[in-house]
Amino acid sequence: MLTVSEALARLMAVPRPALPGEEIALVAALGRVLAEDQQAVLDVPSAANSAMDGYAFCHADVVSASQAGNGSKPLLISQRIAAGHSPQPLQAGTAARLFTGAEIPPGADTVVMQEDCDADSGQLRIRELPQRGSNVRPRGQDVSLGQYLLHTGQRLRAQDLGLLASQGLDRVRVFRRLKVALLSTGDELVEPGKPLGPGQIYNSNRYTMMGLLQGWGFEVLDLGIAPDQPERIRSLLSEAAQLADVIISSGGVSVGEEDHVKAIVEQLGTLDLWRIAIKPGKPFASGTVAGKPFLGLPGNPVSVFVTLLIIARPFLLASQGMNAGPMVVSKERALFEKAGNSREDYLRVRLTADGVELFSSQSSGVLTSASMSDGLVRQPMGQQIAVGDSVDFIAYSVLT
Amino acid sequence: MLTVSEALARLMAVPRPALPGEEIALVAALGRVLAEDQQAVLDVPSAANSAMDGYAFCHADVVSASQAGNGSKPLLISQRIAAGHSPQPLQAGTAARLFTGAEIPPGADTVVMQEDCDADSGQLRIRELPQRGSNVRPRGQDVSLGQYLLHTGQRLRAQDLGLLASQGLDRVRVFRRLKVALLSTGDELVEPGKPLGPGQIYNSNRYTMMGLLQGWGFEVLDLGIAPDQPERIRSLLSEAAQLADVIISSGGVSVGEEDHVKAIVEQLGTLDLWRIAIKPGKPFASGTVAGKPFLGLPGNPVSVFVTLLIIARPFLLASQGMNAGPMVVSKERALFEKAGNSREDYLRVRLTADGVELFSSQSSGVLTSASMSDGLVRQPMGQQIAVGDSVDFIAYSVLT
Repeated sequence: MLTVSEALARLMAVPRPALPGEEIALVAALGRVLAEDQQAVLDVPSAANSAMDGYAFCHADVVSASQAGNGSKPLLISQRIAAGHSPQPLQAGTAARLFTGAEIPPGADTVVMQEDCDADSGQLRIRELPQRGSNVRPRGQDVSLGQYLLHTGQRLRAQDLGLLASQGLDRVRVFRRLKVALLSTGDELVEPGKPLGPGQIYNSNRYTMMGLLQGWGFEVLDLGIAPDQPERIRSLLSEAAQLADVIISSGGVSVGEEDHVKAIVEQLGTLDLWRIAIKPGKPFASGTVAGKPFLGLPGNPVSVFVTLLIIARPFLLASQGMNAGPMVVSKERALFEKAGNSREDYLRVRLTADGVELFSSQSSGVLTSASMSDGLVRQPMGQQIAVGDSVDFIAYSVLT
Repeated sequence: MLTVSEALARLMAVPRPALPGEEIALVAALGRVLAEDQQAVLDVPSAANSAMDGYAFCHADVVSASQAGNGSKPLLISQRIAAGHSPQPLQAGTAARLFTGAEIPPGADTVVMQEDCDADSGQLRIRELPQRGSNVRPRGQDVSLGQYLLHTGQRLRAQDLGLLASQGLDRVRVFRRLKVALLSTGDELVEPGKPLGPGQIYNSNRYTMMGLLQGWGFEVLDLGIAPDQPERIRSLLSEAAQLADVIISSGGVSVGEEDHVKAIVEQLGTLDLWRIAIKPGKPFASGTVAGKPFLGLPGNPVSVFVTLLIIARPFLLASQGMNAGPMVVSKERALFEKAGNSREDYLRVRLTADGVELFSSQSSGVLTSASMSDGLVRQPMGQQIAVGDSVDFIAYSVLT
């Protein structure tokens, strides 16, 4: 049996598709993955501007007036600078009214906050002289031309879009969306909305898989339930390998199972069957169909969910060109006890203010445990968990 | 000044739109919010089935044979039950070959794993007799008819879609998407892609706001940059109030600012200006335009980001009909020191294996701090942070 980290390392060594880049509108780029580094094309601010509502003046003017014994002499307010308008050069010995964000006029170097001065009849009296340069944001303070802002492989969040927009960019180069073909196998499967015959169950895996894959930003090509006809499966898989970058199946490919899909994948490419020391989700297949990666997940609903999150996700994100970084694991207090297992166990738990509670049924057939929980506790092989222990918690929200 | 929790309570008391429900295909329901409770319409499993690959038999048959001195007498294998096919009633004193998930035939009550028996020439010899009922999943074990599975106000995740699918549901009733109209104000603003004149800056707030709102699943109606013509602003805002459920503006509505938008909102409805003890982001306006909620965010890029995440988000999610629950705050070790502030400070930090690192510039004008960070540390008013302190950390990923 492979440990989870051995399986992850082995899967990450499988050749991944090289996705082309495409230039898209920034307004449609949320969640997309950058295909090139982004360097600043502008200084921000592009000119020195005011950090406060107040008055800009030349510090030396006031200091020299003060040294000449005219300390309390007011400054003439010689201009008013509206935001978005260019200032005139400041006349010596005068001040300019301005507001937060307004450009500092040439000749001024300091801003006094409106709270620290009195303006009356076009004259400004500074009650408290700030230090030279106060309340001025120099050009390039926030971002300087050429600075690296974002890197290839970053997934664009709202604030990243804002940052690119602040540079005047309205288009961005991202990797094409990863196309993932999905196949569900199992004679007993029926699509929701259709009547259920004896011995049949509804195909929930398709929905769980589609939801996760869509949440990761991929384009999903749904091949449906594998038909019981080898020729149709062969043509479906061949077509999927043409159209998609990665093919994923649930069920039917574990050690010892008889399955058309398994046999046809072996004919069209390669198939390695792994037994991973993970619970739920032991069987896992990795292979190729006409050169495209093929991942065979187990068939049980919770096993599909956990292996897709824990085993397949890093491979899929890397296939999308994303630098996902390590999974974020936090420490939480266990509110339950549980004996160790011969496999690494991913327990479905609910997060409370006091710690994490175990969902009562941890059976791999019970999707309620995944739906009613907030994340997974990772229980290492053979390690017992006692009430109060600090355990590794992986929130579903960090796996998006 | 209002504290953050006072502001949140006051905003949550503002009347919210009542969104209609709509029935949509389950396949398109990822991220949508349930408009009705979901009760189980089926027992799962719908009939007792096997938890293992093995053989089903009647426990009493084997026990009585053993008591009669025929302990090692093999059982005839009288049928093979393929997954998805109905079993025949089990003939007394025989066994049925079956696989994981296959229905237990009437007359059988126990399954022996294939590893614990020998099958040869149509005869089964059980090496280790399991307890009665072993390896059988009884009908309704996972889900029983009528059980509450999901509740009104839950946002549908991948595993929730899987759970509904497992009940045979292919449609689901959700709230219509919340429609949010966005307006950016500021004479100095220019849309990305256009040339920048003197004193102008690019409108990044539009992209940050759109990204967050889209990420929360809302429909965004972008009104663009407020034009400098009161009549056009009036018709824009009136139209927005007709089409949208909530109107949000950035900039221009803080205390003391002169702004057409502010004046027109006051004419068309109401406007309350709040000073919230939050940093970045002090000014915040709450009002109505023709009966629709109006939120006025500050103008600085990071203030927009923080106030939208911390102040506006709970109101918007509740407007969508979602029971968001309290914000998930984790404890992390501070790798920095910082003096307290007269406002509750939301510091942009990077999460590392050792704790959280402060991003060097915390200026509200610098969107790089939001883009280069993983979340916010909440520093209570007047409280100092020393290296090694346990601090409240809010990951951006939990605010989606």
